[in-house]
Amino acid sequence: MAYDTLTQRDAPLSDAALSQLFTEARTRNGWTDRPVAPELLHKLYELTKHGPTAFNGSPARFVFVISPQAKARLVPLMAEGNRAKTQQAPVSVIIAQDIDFHERLDALLPHAPGVKGYFTDEAVRRESAFRNASLQGGYLTIAARALGLDVGPMSGFDAAGVKAEFFPDSNVEPNYILNLGYGSDENLFPRSPRLSFDEAAQIL
Amino acid sequence: MAYDTLTQRDAPLSDAALSQLFTEARTRNGWTDRPVAPELLHKLYELTKHGPTAFNGSPARFVFVISPQAKARLVPLMAEGNRAKTQQAPVSVIIAQDIDFHERLDALLPHAPGVKGYFTDEAVRRESAFRNASLQGGYLTIAARALGLDVGPMSGFDAAGVKAEFFPDSNVEPNYILNLGYGSDENLFPRSPRLSFDEAAQIL
Repeated sequence: MAYDTLTQRDAPLSDAALSQLFTEARTRNGWTDRPVAPELLHKLYELTKHGPTAFNGSPARFVFVISPQAKARLVPLMAEGNRAKTQQAPVSVIIAQDIDFHERLDALLPHAPGVKGYFTDEAVRRESAFRNASLQGGYLTIAARALGLDVGPMSGFDAAGVKAEFFPDSNVEPNYILNLGYGSDENLFPRSPRLSFDEAAQIL
Repeated sequence: MAYDTLTQRDAPLSDAALSQLFTEARTRNGWTDRPVAPELLHKLYELTKHGPTAFNGSPARFVFVISPQAKARLVPLMAEGNRAKTQQAPVSVIIAQDIDFHERLDALLPHAPGVKGYFTDEAVRRESAFRNASLQGGYLTIAARALGLDVGPMSGFDAAGVKAEFFPDSNVEPNYILNLGYGSDENLFPRSPRLSFDEAAQIL
């Protein structure tokens, strides 16, 4: 199709928006006392859920840990260096994946009934769930920044412990954990270098 | 820290921007003939690279397949249902991960020398590389939309074949493949349903 026949054209966001989402955003290790309202967590999910996943399988599950009681269950399971900031953050999000996501595929992909059959092998499901829930973690991160929030992702925690504590009766497994709120500059590291285009990419 | 002492405040993006990034964006299966300039691919990488990864390890590698010669190497390795659209798209991006990403950690994380030692076990590296390169795929997807581009991600392809064809002499492995350009409405499916908040999330 000729591009000129389209009514919608490309529309890059402003430099300010790109800065907020990517170039000026920072992983936060300290948090202000401003709470995050449940309504904002709902809005965050409503954005995140639209990001693409394989067969629209949507394997990610999100546990928003806010109350002192829930924090007390999570914090001891974090790696020692992640405990204080997880305690301080107004919200900690356990990003997990449902290995049995395929059970909902008939409802999630109505135009292609039967794709559930591709996922009878648990190892196949496990790889797809891990990939796509991780993608959804990426979408959540940028969606949070789009809503004016900061994030601080962490993979240092007792995965078996979090599984047992938060997902004991299902085939849901934790992937990683992300602190969420309005960050402070406390314990902010200098921006670390990134790989250059030529180190990480090629055009063929 | 009291939130009121901060100079920068929360700043949600406009509804139009949120629509472009999430709620109105669609996975494209058809592509217009408008090319994507190499400069825009560089800009896309410069946004994507800033997304957070564990220990700033940045394991993702991106191969932008554009030329007819490179397309001819890739298209036969796609699942049959993904071939025509991959041929048609102006750019196909192989998102891969370097299982040996740890070799660059001393340079990428200068404030914490020695974390490379956490990754001597290849199975540990493999899991971290897969998780974090998938996150980076999520960042790339939203960054592309922020630049006015459309995406069409696919996981149906011959992974061993793509590894042998594009990454024969390294420990880099393909993760998934994403078509990129200015989409048309050709073969656009109706928007599939998503899980409700209560089906995918909980607040504790």
